[in-house]
Amino acid sequence: MAQRVAFTKGHGTGNDFVIIADPDGVLEISPDQVAALCDRNFGIGADGVLRVVRTQHVPEGAALLAEDADAEWFMDYRNADGSLAEMCGNGIRVFAKFVLDHGYAELEPGSTLPIATRAGVRDVTRSASGFQVDLGRWRLDPEETLVRARDLPVARPGQGINVGNPHIVVAVADDAELDAIDLAYPPLLEPRPEHGANVEFVVPLDPMVVDGVGAIRMRVHERGVGETLSCGSGVAAAALAVRHWAGATAPNQWRVDVPGGTLGVRMFPTEEGEHVGLSGPAALVYSGTITLKG
Amino acid sequence: MAQRVAFTKGHGTGNDFVIIADPDGVLEISPDQVAALCDRNFGIGADGVLRVVRTQHVPEGAALLAEDADAEWFMDYRNADGSLAEMCGNGIRVFAKFVLDHGYAELEPGSTLPIATRAGVRDVTRSASGFQVDLGRWRLDPEETLVRARDLPVARPGQGINVGNPHIVVAVADDAELDAIDLAYPPLLEPRPEHGANVEFVVPLDPMVVDGVGAIRMRVHERGVGETLSCGSGVAAAALAVRHWAGATAPNQWRVDVPGGTLGVRMFPTEEGEHVGLSGPAALVYSGTITLKG
Repeated sequence: MAQRVAFTKGHGTGNDFVIIADPDGVLEISPDQVAALCDRNFGIGADGVLRVVRTQHVPEGAALLAEDADAEWFMDYRNADGSLAEMCGNGIRVFAKFVLDHGYAELEPGSTLPIATRAGVRDVTRSASGFQVDLGRWRLDPEETLVRARDLPVARPGQGINVGNPHIVVAVADDAELDAIDLAYPPLLEPRPEHGANVEFVVPLDPMVVDGVGAIRMRVHERGVGETLSCGSGVAAAALAVRHWAGATAPNQWRVDVPGGTLGVRMFPTEEGEHVGLSGPAALVYSGTITLKG
Repeated sequence: MAQRVAFTKGHGTGNDFVIIADPDGVLEISPDQVAALCDRNFGIGADGVLRVVRTQHVPEGAALLAEDADAEWFMDYRNADGSLAEMCGNGIRVFAKFVLDHGYAELEPGSTLPIATRAGVRDVTRSASGFQVDLGRWRLDPEETLVRARDLPVARPGQGINVGNPHIVVAVADDAELDAIDLAYPPLLEPRPEHGANVEFVVPLDPMVVDGVGAIRMRVHERGVGETLSCGSGVAAAALAVRHWAGATAPNQWRVDVPGGTLGVRMFPTEEGEHVGLSGPAALVYSGTITLKG
């Protein structure tokens, strides 16, 4: 049955989303419909769909509420292919901007907006560049992965990092080497991770640290997608890997330049151990209506 | 100054456009604004912008009217990079659907809707699949061009055809060879046309002719753009080249499969010589509003 739906298009550093407000959880959007919405020539075009729904109306949200979570809004995130996704570091900033701009929630400076996701509740705060999201705990992989990429002269060791999803971070020699890599071809990983991984290629800025803030440039290949303009969790993973390589004196605050813009990463202690936070801009570009088919 | 603009998004076989109604010609849309609208991550995303404006409000349109042209609507077409474009075989069907659906014009079966463009007036009629546009006169290039493409085993001779804009059509051996070509890299042309050319790679279906209709499959590399899902003039050029190769008994009606769908080509006599017509679907996908910046 065809249904008419209002939407807003937004992006965070070029990682772009169709946002659909469905406060009472009455919309049924099938994977095929998500894929049709995200098609860049035949649909609206986006990296994913963010459905804005009250937490109690989503089974995963109701489970969080049963565990005493306190988050009115649930980010129901779907990838462009229609599959479910747990979290998205760029998407959650765009989600936050949407609920605040549309009066679904309020966020005073210094306070926190908790947003429920399939990865649990994530806390969003305001930052100088837009919003910061606490991505929570992270961990280094003990083993090394060998990474080959087209037009990268030699195979390089990659550092595995899990930030809710798996990443392999690879240092390259300089800007010229970073620019030359042809990411139209997926990098080859050895050993090959069971569920694949996003691969980040990074180069430090010169000087790398200014006034206690580190700075790197990166490009990313997202598993199952290809090269993208930005990947929030990949940016956090890249900063964590470079800090790891730089040793004990390395800073806990980083600026990461991606093809779509600039993001900030901050590592900070919590009761359960160190968390990593991601900050950056969020933009709402236009709004419209479309008929969902099928 | 920021201005709020209503738009509709449409496509013809995946070749997609932002359509803006500006009947009285009051909008000033700069090349930078066109490029921002067409950006697929930061804007709406499209191959081009179609401004719907009364012919007398565009200098090129006023010149046509002075020569006794009879076309109320002018298709002000801009490429995604903001540059002016003369004509677009897929765009003009989408333009026609927009003006008809929005009541700006009427088109009875069997009659003709003349649309003014920078290439002159083009006549649009209804067809089984949607609309047909008369692309006018065409011509074969006398000289051969040698075409090299990545992952195409050997250099091949290409047939130059001008259908208002320049094309080089190349026959490849079979579907497997067509699919293997890597059009992420622009084909190399020798001699190199002064202003470049679109390059079409074609393979006949088996059998090529059924009930007097020829059928081919093609992929296209558009100059300055890359591989696209469809190119209207390229489809016409491909059918014209294959008919030329097939000799005197070849049909004057063709079906051309492109990655974005299927188009029809028809060659027919007129007083000034043979014309080529292109037919195919046109779809309006959604509508919205956006603020133009700058």
